[in-house]
Amino acid sequence: MTQDIDILISEVGPRDGLQNTKQFMPTDYKKKWISAAAAAGLREIEVCSFVPPKLIPQMADAPEVVAHALTIPGLNVAALAPNFTGAQRAMRAGVHKLTLTISVSREHSLSNVRMTPDEAIASAKKICDFRDSLPKDKRPIIESGLSTVFGCTLEGAVSEDEVVRMAVASVEAGCDEVGLADTTGYANPEQVRRVFTKVRAAIGGKLSGAHLHNTRGLGLANVVAALEVGVTTFDSSLGGLGGCPFAPGATGNIVTEDLVFMLEAMGLRTGIDIDKLIAIRKIVAEGIPGEPLYGYVPDAGVTKGFVPATARG
Amino acid sequence: MTQDIDILISEVGPRDGLQNTKQFMPTDYKKKWISAAAAAGLREIEVCSFVPPKLIPQMADAPEVVAHALTIPGLNVAALAPNFTGAQRAMRAGVHKLTLTISVSREHSLSNVRMTPDEAIASAKKICDFRDSLPKDKRPIIESGLSTVFGCTLEGAVSEDEVVRMAVASVEAGCDEVGLADTTGYANPEQVRRVFTKVRAAIGGKLSGAHLHNTRGLGLANVVAALEVGVTTFDSSLGGLGGCPFAPGATGNIVTEDLVFMLEAMGLRTGIDIDKLIAIRKIVAEGIPGEPLYGYVPDAGVTKGFVPATARG
Repeated sequence: MTQDIDILISEVGPRDGLQNTKQFMPTDYKKKWISAAAAAGLREIEVCSFVPPKLIPQMADAPEVVAHALTIPGLNVAALAPNFTGAQRAMRAGVHKLTLTISVSREHSLSNVRMTPDEAIASAKKICDFRDSLPKDKRPIIESGLSTVFGCTLEGAVSEDEVVRMAVASVEAGCDEVGLADTTGYANPEQVRRVFTKVRAAIGGKLSGAHLHNTRGLGLANVVAALEVGVTTFDSSLGGLGGCPFAPGATGNIVTEDLVFMLEAMGLRTGIDIDKLIAIRKIVAEGIPGEPLYGYVPDAGVTKGFVPATARG
Repeated sequence: MTQDIDILISEVGPRDGLQNTKQFMPTDYKKKWISAAAAAGLREIEVCSFVPPKLIPQMADAPEVVAHALTIPGLNVAALAPNFTGAQRAMRAGVHKLTLTISVSREHSLSNVRMTPDEAIASAKKICDFRDSLPKDKRPIIESGLSTVFGCTLEGAVSEDEVVRMAVASVEAGCDEVGLADTTGYANPEQVRRVFTKVRAAIGGKLSGAHLHNTRGLGLANVVAALEVGVTTFDSSLGGLGGCPFAPGATGNIVTEDLVFMLEAMGLRTGIDIDKLIAIRKIVAEGIPGEPLYGYVPDAGVTKGFVPATARG
């Protein structure tokens, strides 16, 4: 992270958000969104996932979207891949960062990627080895995105020892970073503090960020807990798009707009201009008409006399 | 607080919630709600406010509602009053706890109760003196409910020194407790930690609870911050009713159902049965048809295999 920000927000809307919408957002709108997000100050955007277009047609234009994102100076272009084929496509497209989804829950892993967690680790090793065979300037950072870390809708509780074991295995497989995801919106602040602390004790600085959901309204509460134990990178999604919403109002991903407001109000610099950020909702609303956009701050506005930490410098 | 719970949740829905709805909830529904809330394990309910019925017709049945609540064994019956006349009515009705709203912001105080903050303190002193003139068994606990503590929609930032001064003045006026309210949804977690710590340094154990709003989605995040600095009493409202909602989804009060879920998941006992609590929404929805009820946990359900702290004993 550069020294002019305290917290890195990784916008996952174009990937996690659009992957879960019914409509295909036209490629031009995706490009506009990504450009506007970068212009608002976002330093990292997960722009797409490399999944079979037959399964998720929303991501059929992944290479074109990456190509556009790569033209934006200074932007860290991230993408997700569930397997070796997808990872190869992502690397061919030239992403800077590649996140592999590796589920700690056996049931979730089998239903999501048809591999056991250990098979997913083996796949990650194959991907990392392939990456290492590329010329140096073609090698992306590889993140193990551990999912269902805080609980699983199929299995219920997930063993914290197993989370630690999978984090260590990810590093041993060659991953540069390990992120922890509350895929299911199961996490609570006490658990967030405990699990991040345990994983950091095991893999130190390779622990990267938190991907928290807001399914039960605890998203920002969990951010506060993660901040306390030193987490400085957070995934979030514009308008809370994506992440398996259960019901109206019960969003999946934490809302970037609300997250930025909270952090800036707390005196933590994100480098993001909240007015420009909120203005992006218009592009997204046009690109996927009728899709609900969540968030409190866009409705209520910032507080009177609000001076964001980023503006204070 | 009794030793079998860690956190006292004070349900303010029948007061703060119904005061802000367009419809009058029939008195029988109010009684059913209060009884059901007590049966779900709530130990304290702010059942009404003693305000001029001409101004707030929703509260016209305040004495009857208090009389019903007083029949419920073990329930701490609380009410709010904005001035001496209201406080006298509340004491006549026999409430156990009386909360006086005292705004730290001069502009808000003038527009809300047509008194300056210092005049409101003088009024509190008059009320406390009157209370002390009553027979011992007729004397309620009096709480100074300091409002606009974290910011004001009219004035913007509110001086923390002024908050401390008003807390001390409340105690000197004879109030037994001082609660801090984020009336406007302006608080952020860093500020919550700082302000509660400052006020506790000034008035110690007389600092009672936190009344936090969710206008900008930071309600539960602020609860986490307050827990860290030792706050153990929280106001909340069933379905997030009340508290000046700005827009759909942008609720006022924090939602009791989500708060209870979070605390119990964190291992903190509230004494409340979350299934019984969620079931109360049906009564409320029938009593004020069409009024939106908020909350994430009621939609998403508790997590698979969830064992609340209260059930663990």
